[in-house]
Amino acid sequence: MKKIKERIYTAGLIIIGNEILSGRTEDKNISYVAKSLTQSGIRLNEVRVIGDIEEEIVISINNFRNRFDYVFTTGGIGPTHDDITTQSIAKAFGVKNILNPDAYKILLDYYGDRSKINESRMRMAYAPEGSELIYNDISKAPGFKKENVFILAGVPKIMMSMLDAVLPTLEKGRRLNSIELDAKVPEGVIAPELTAIQEKHEETDIGSYPYYENDKAGTVLVLRSTDMVALKKVEIEVLNLIKRFT
Amino acid sequence: MKKIKERIYTAGLIIIGNEILSGRTEDKNISYVAKSLTQSGIRLNEVRVIGDIEEEIVISINNFRNRFDYVFTTGGIGPTHDDITTQSIAKAFGVKNILNPDAYKILLDYYGDRSKINESRMRMAYAPEGSELIYNDISKAPGFKKENVFILAGVPKIMMSMLDAVLPTLEKGRRLNSIELDAKVPEGVIAPELTAIQEKHEETDIGSYPYYENDKAGTVLVLRSTDMVALKKVEIEVLNLIKRFT
Repeated sequence: MKKIKERIYTAGLIIIGNEILSGRTEDKNISYVAKSLTQSGIRLNEVRVIGDIEEEIVISINNFRNRFDYVFTTGGIGPTHDDITTQSIAKAFGVKNILNPDAYKILLDYYGDRSKINESRMRMAYAPEGSELIYNDISKAPGFKKENVFILAGVPKIMMSMLDAVLPTLEKGRRLNSIELDAKVPEGVIAPELTAIQEKHEETDIGSYPYYENDKAGTVLVLRSTDMVALKKVEIEVLNLIKRFT
Repeated sequence: MKKIKERIYTAGLIIIGNEILSGRTEDKNISYVAKSLTQSGIRLNEVRVIGDIEEEIVISINNFRNRFDYVFTTGGIGPTHDDITTQSIAKAFGVKNILNPDAYKILLDYYGDRSKINESRMRMAYAPEGSELIYNDISKAPGFKKENVFILAGVPKIMMSMLDAVLPTLEKGRRLNSIELDAKVPEGVIAPELTAIQEKHEETDIGSYPYYENDKAGTVLVLRSTDMVALKKVEIEVLNLIKRFT
């Protein structure tokens, strides 16, 4: 049996915005990014939600870009005073935040005339030196790619459009295959034998998620592996385990 | 004019669970915790979503418990092999994860008989040495408080019940007052003058959040301050600004 050591591609997501931390806005981005990356063959290893504070953006960017293959940020790329993402990321990279000619051209095409681009709007055309544009279908303000950091919008529709544009261009690993089984018993009932199954099958990750329905406790088991054959073996063992208790 | 330097109480939230990072489960906890803390007079400064990985839990716990007044964790306190939160937090504190007599008593009362508490269920009664219980109305498994770290369940209903029990017991600062204004114009239109208003009024935080409705761009402005008089002054200035453009 050959066993090729697979390259796993990892990612981190940084949600930038006081409005999430204050509870004013419910985050809609984590779940979309998580699903999209997983389905693409990229593992999302960590998410951080931080405020519109330069120092915190710098720290998280530098931590993530060294730990993960890809870093995605959402939020803080608009025209107002609290939009400080690109300047903070430039600082994290130790480069200047400069007028990006491609981004400026988009603004100019849209507003028609330099005089209509006030100082605030002009900020949307600034990006860390050496950035490439990320286009989107909805707004004129582009996102940016600086090395392995992808700077996306915070508005979910725009963020999604940008992420969808970026993902096909990235190197990715094999997708995780996933099987969900509903054990209609509480976790505690099957836990000891489930542990034994997990210990026998390292290549498959078994997640156990309790739920409550009409005051009855149940458990969803999620089996995940890049190896479909290994996954099917674990499925059979888990199905046998469930059968004994239901 | 007296100006008392106010004590601000801060918090960090750590969501522990592979299921959020894989996109299998949509997080429902961040928004509830964020709202509850804000309304109580505690500032949520950072949220992290991490996997069921001991080393990552240890790193985030030690980072947060030194930076913030309060740390809340959700998830990973059930009976299965992937529930490793309490043992990881014990490690972060450099103490043992031991059988908590109060938690054991709850389990014993519920199951009636020691013989019905299998090894896996017994794990739910283990907590870092020196922990106190956090009760909840829904399940028998309690959460734990270890110094400034509050270890809560991952299931939203249970997490909410635990947080609601904990919050009244904490020292808190003054609540942030908040005013929302709908400027029915794109951010870029009002941004320059909004920046000027923000620069004049340090004690009030002005957030600007773009939205799209029927393909028309608008902006919600959120003004926040602990000082109601200061807040009202800013409100008047912002209302005048909006009026000029609509």
